[in-house]
Amino acid sequence: MEPWHTAIVHAQDGEIRLQGYDVTALMTTRTFTDTIYLLHRGRLPSPTERGLLDAILTGVADHGSGAPSCATARLALSGNRGSLSSACAAGLLAVGDEHGGAGLNCMEMLAAGLAAARADGTSMEETAERIVAQARHDRRRVPGFGHRVHTRDPRTPVLFQMARAGGVAADGIALMEALERSLTRTVKRLPINIDGALAAVLHDLGFAPAFGRFVFFIGRMAGITAEVGEELSREKPMRIRVPVQYDGPAPRDIE
Amino acid sequence: MEPWHTAIVHAQDGEIRLQGYDVTALMTTRTFTDTIYLLHRGRLPSPTERGLLDAILTGVADHGSGAPSCATARLALSGNRGSLSSACAAGLLAVGDEHGGAGLNCMEMLAAGLAAARADGTSMEETAERIVAQARHDRRRVPGFGHRVHTRDPRTPVLFQMARAGGVAADGIALMEALERSLTRTVKRLPINIDGALAAVLHDLGFAPAFGRFVFFIGRMAGITAEVGEELSREKPMRIRVPVQYDGPAPRDIE
Amino acid sequence: MEPWHTAIVHAQDGEIRLQGYDVTALMTTRTFTDTIYLLHRGRLPSPTERGLLDAILTGVADHGSGAPSCATARLALSGNRGSLSSACAAGLLAVGDEHGGAGLNCMEMLAAGLAAARADGTSMEETAERIVAQARHDRRRVPGFGHRVHTRDPRTPVLFQMARAGGVAADGIALMEALERSLTRTVKRLPINIDGALAAVLHDLGFAPAFGRFVFFIGRMAGITAEVGEELSREKPMRIRVPVQYDGPAPRDIE
Amino acid sequence: MEPWHTAIVHAQDGEIRLQGYDVTALMTTRTFTDTIYLLHRGRLPSPTERGLLDAILTGVADHGSGAPSCATARLALSGNRGSLSSACAAGLLAVGDEHGGAGLNCMEMLAAGLAAARADGTSMEETAERIVAQARHDRRRVPGFGHRVHTRDPRTPVLFQMARAGGVAADGIALMEALERSLTRTVKRLPINIDGALAAVLHDLGFAPAFGRFVFFIGRMAGITAEVGEELSREKPMRIRVPVQYDGPAPRDIE
Repeated sequence: MEPWHTAIVHAQDGEIRLQGYDVTALMTTRTFTDTIYLLHRGRLPSPTERGLLDAILTGVADHGSGAPSCATARLALSGNRGSLSSACAAGLLAVGDEHGGAGLNCMEMLAAGLAAARADGTSMEETAERIVAQARHDRRRVPGFGHRVHTRDPRTPVLFQMARAGGVAADGIALMEALERSLTRTVKRLPINIDGALAAVLHDLGFAPAFGRFVFFIGRMAGITAEVGEELSREKPMRIRVPVQYDGPAPRDIE
Repeated sequence: MEPWHTAIVHAQDGEIRLQGYDVTALMTTRTFTDTIYLLHRGRLPSPTERGLLDAILTGVADHGSGAPSCATARLALSGNRGSLSSACAAGLLAVGDEHGGAGLNCMEMLAAGLAAARADGTSMEETAERIVAQARHDRRRVPGFGHRVHTRDPRTPVLFQMARAGGVAADGIALMEALERSLTRTVKRLPINIDGALAAVLHDLGFAPAFGRFVFFIGRMAGITAEVGEELSREKPMRIRVPVQYDGPAPRDIE
Repeated sequence: MEPWHTAIVHAQDGEIRLQGYDVTALMTTRTFTDTIYLLHRGRLPSPTERGLLDAILTGVADHGSGAPSCATARLALSGNRGSLSSACAAGLLAVGDEHGGAGLNCMEMLAAGLAAARADGTSMEETAERIVAQARHDRRRVPGFGHRVHTRDPRTPVLFQMARAGGVAADGIALMEALERSLTRTVKRLPINIDGALAAVLHDLGFAPAFGRFVFFIGRMAGITAEVGEELSREKPMRIRVPVQYDGPAPRDIE
Repeated sequence: MEPWHTAIVHAQDGEIRLQGYDVTALMTTRTFTDTIYLLHRGRLPSPTERGLLDAILTGVADHGSGAPSCATARLALSGNRGSLSSACAAGLLAVGDEHGGAGLNCMEMLAAGLAAARADGTSMEETAERIVAQARHDRRRVPGFGHRVHTRDPRTPVLFQMARAGGVAADGIALMEALERSLTRTVKRLPINIDGALAAVLHDLGFAPAFGRFVFFIGRMAGITAEVGEELSREKPMRIRVPVQYDGPAPRDIE
């Protein structure tokens, strides 16, 4: 087999370098969040960049045992106590477009919308109107808005304020806010949720759209592991019984 | 269904509290590593505790694309580009006793060994001898020693030095070092690897054994996502061809 | 990389051979159950062997949407509708010692128990007593007995009758029945469940213990996919809300 | 929590009914393939329908250890020998649009194409031309054609012949064959592969598109488990070393 190529890590006897930096230097002088930034961007973050990534990772770390990711992990452990990998991986598998994954879709929407705006010279408000109209026409939801628990997601203004204070707020945040105004005008009050907020900030920090999903995986792994640890220490195997009502064919015989 | 009980997170409209702390306060004043510590321990860390957890998470974040976790994630993506969850979960599923998971086993060994030592009043050296003799008798490997790439794992002395400088080095590190001496005497030179080192430090910090595996999941998720991101941006679907040689039954007909 | 070696399948341009047989011949003259048997045993089954494997696979195919495997798959899909692989894999990850996986443990117990019986010349009843006494001493459950839904698992007598009628019932079934008598005498009435029944039959058919778990994966995949298909066609995204009650630390401020 | 609703299985003490049929009756009189058909369609198959489903499941059961699904499962086991669930689930996670999953996409394409043809009164050849032209315009591949190993997939003619002999070949097969002719005229000789063949047959049998992926999961689980079983019995832990070449930043110091 041809060797694989990578620009991320080089490990050899006695030495491990992440993007060129000695891992022991990173261990002694930098934070884990710096390492995440480094592995995904190829350079270490500024204090503002680090602070924003820390805030995003903490913001998505856990939202309660009943969120699909955490509940799935607990349910898997309930039947398979012997494998912590299985439970934590199952939790990750519940993350997608509907839960925790809208950051990616939102970053793609921002990138495409802003590129079109630049090409056509449309304003933020016009761009937002166009995106909302298109989504309504396609009967798709605009990703990054609304939350089944929060009327207003408390994490959104925190992230936007930090980005503004750090001088990194740019077109991503501006377009998300224009979209919120446009949705409020044409559909209903649909505030920006954490997925939409992190998408805007990560766009303005220059991350690729896929990181909008990766950042949720990394942050939520903190919560999934904590939930799995609690299930393991506080609960019995097979304790979860989902109530089910059968509404299929009546008893019948094979002819 | 009975409601589930949890002591980790409480979320209600407009408010999310992790172990009692408002998530927005954590986002603005603390790091992601603090949040990890909080979710798993129920309290925020001291600077020394945070520094050690940062060092451990960075230490296990990535060890190259060829490690089972990263290679499995890339291979899964090669056939299933549409699902980042699938690829990252597959990477996690490659973590176990043989790869990245020895921390848990090592922490259990340290806890049991130290409990027995306290009960019997044996010295560190005697305790280590006893553990090594038992493992040899059972034809098991002592977890936390040796590495297929490193003659000496460069991350181990860094962690132990940080723990000593911070005044938290205790019995866990002492027993691991006694085990290394014992193995060298009776088997061969088998230096403490990163799994063994983090197990000793986490034991001395008071973590439960399961965290020895969870910390690898969290740290490695930084690397798995970076490797999956690189595969996605640099490589084509289905590019990986594992060479296979068939040595089974010759062609035959169904009778 | 060195080529991998395998005795299972050889594929080359225009030809695929499973254990030496042309896949097109298997497709036109044999059943899927024959193929499963072939891939795991290296030969095609007799009619009795095929009938028993069919019965086992059907027996474990599905036990309702609330079983951990099916419920986990549905929950994962609820958050991540875009990936059928993710949902079905999550379902598999809920299978372990506590749910669906006892067949492996039971087959290992039967193999070890029967080997010891042969070595020591003990009778079936003595062997069963010894296994039960040891499990009670270790405070372990004897795998393969009892069911949270069934007082008597209806699938067990069917499998044993088929094995007897086909002339393949042997020591595995005999020891399981002796264990049931021993448990009834010393603990309580604990009838053999489907995991125990399939373990006994597969032992008597000469399968390796791991197949006691594999057969559940294959059979249950029929049910997991059906449940995921139903979730997809009948239910909305994010419809599952697990009720959660928080009992952790009260609201507090960061000092 | 509201009870979930399902029309698939009803289990109560002493009785399990799949779509209304007693599981013990199915175990003694029907095959596993019948059960798969039943769970996904709500009725038992005719002999022709059973034969085609058997042929499809055998056709996709295994294509060699190097296919992404099987290689991913083996790689996961290499690092995590303790969890057969983990390895088999990892294998499933490698199945997607690029590997094993094209059946779903192909069935959706056939259904949409045939619906449009009926609406517009276009012929099979015109419909095929239109689909190919659209795919070329969008720079997408038409799913179900070509194979990285086979110039001509030997399983395709077998399935089509069985469908014709059984009198169930209909528009699905006709459109796939028209697409093959159209691709040959406009792109290059791209024969129908197994994914395309099973999609056409399942369409003509009346299955929903999702089953085009489910059938691969079920069939391939036979192969994944066999490959994992072989890895477990023939190979050592951590035996797989993927060769990696680093081409990232040169060694550098943290400023």
